[in-house]
Amino acid sequence: MKCLRNFLLTLALVAVLSTGVHSRSVGVIVYPGFEVLDVFGPLEYWNLLSAVNPTNLSVSVISHEVGPVSAVPPNFPSVIGQSVFATHSFNSAPNLDILMVPGGIGTWSSINDTVLLDFIKQTYPKLEYLMTVCTGSALVAKTGLLDGKMATSNKRAFDWVSQQRPNVKWVRSARWVEDGNILTSSGVQAGMDLTNYLIGKIYNETTAKLVSDFMEYVPHKDPTWDPFANTPK
Amino acid sequence: MKCLRNFLLTLALVAVLSTGVHSRSVGVIVYPGFEVLDVFGPLEYWNLLSAVNPTNLSVSVISHEVGPVSAVPPNFPSVIGQSVFATHSFNSAPNLDILMVPGGIGTWSSINDTVLLDFIKQTYPKLEYLMTVCTGSALVAKTGLLDGKMATSNKRAFDWVSQQRPNVKWVRSARWVEDGNILTSSGVQAGMDLTNYLIGKIYNETTAKLVSDFMEYVPHKDPTWDPFANTPK
Repeated sequence: MKCLRNFLLTLALVAVLSTGVHSRSVGVIVYPGFEVLDVFGPLEYWNLLSAVNPTNLSVSVISHEVGPVSAVPPNFPSVIGQSVFATHSFNSAPNLDILMVPGGIGTWSSINDTVLLDFIKQTYPKLEYLMTVCTGSALVAKTGLLDGKMATSNKRAFDWVSQQRPNVKWVRSARWVEDGNILTSSGVQAGMDLTNYLIGKIYNETTAKLVSDFMEYVPHKDPTWDPFANTPK
Repeated sequence: MKCLRNFLLTLALVAVLSTGVHSRSVGVIVYPGFEVLDVFGPLEYWNLLSAVNPTNLSVSVISHEVGPVSAVPPNFPSVIGQSVFATHSFNSAPNLDILMVPGGIGTWSSINDTVLLDFIKQTYPKLEYLMTVCTGSALVAKTGLLDGKMATSNKRAFDWVSQQRPNVKWVRSARWVEDGNILTSSGVQAGMDLTNYLIGKIYNETTAKLVSDFMEYVPHKDPTWDPFANTPK
């Protein structure tokens, strides 16, 4: 295992750089038909950050029940998707500092899920940051938490998402939008760019770069970069 | 659900573009300590491609047993990771056209897993393509299937990976390497770029671009692009 330790030692710098910051509890909501990359792109960041800093970071996967949650949308059984294991129910979720709400085809089925929406609404006041990926913005908008705030979402679903809550200042062209402590991102892959930004903000940019480099990813750092803003809806 | 149908209609072009190609069975191996983005970056591509083309594509998640497989490495219990549900065991796996082997910290624990290695070796002769992400290259190399062939892997683990099988022509600087029907990619995120390339090769570039656009990702298309080749090992 010596080589593995050497491999992980490259991450040790991250630990050094994030020393002194208070510990954080990250939670990700999953629901039937969630988009796998919406969830696991950002989680790759948090997982790697935890690898050398386990006492300072916890990550929970939260849904209606503990157990497997399928990425196959309820109304589209022909769509292929994998199942991820929820570690906590909405009732048993730990205190959270950061809550992430992903999107996916299942958003359409969950948009009136009052238990899920209430969990977001009731958790928000104690959060440091609330972030969304893709059509996850529709779920947060539906709670009313985005009223009067700027937000973005997936470009191909933009009209549907924005119709869910016209009181939100919807921004079509953006990789991500930050308004107060709510950060919303564009479609799927944009969640990784937002997570890179958020880690840079919470820890520092060097830490974010080290984690991005470790996954051999060059994130987009300009929140206004958006070549997809004018794609067909 | 009308809006959802409109949303999915944008994917219909993919179905049209891939009409006439024969059906394919894609399998992904998972093992304790797999890297989540190694698995779910490429699967995001296959899932979306299946969404409008379910009769032409199946995706299996294969491991020792059917059931949850944790991304927490056995020897590093402090590392955070989620569990994905394996749909098939090595014994019950369907016939496959494409097999993907991901990497992760767990590669170090699985490098002598003869059941896993035998599955790769025995499946290979019937495959159209065998692909790896990150340190997954070490597992395929260990089977001997890469002997005399060119291959690449994660840059921070490159020395350890290449030591597993010196008979392989290891290429340090590459986003991915194609040699015959074995395609190996660099670390983590590189698996998405390789998958984009493979879908372009199997179907056509327009189909690959539509799926990439749908996930708002601009993939790297040059296999020699590699800003990480000289990062510390």
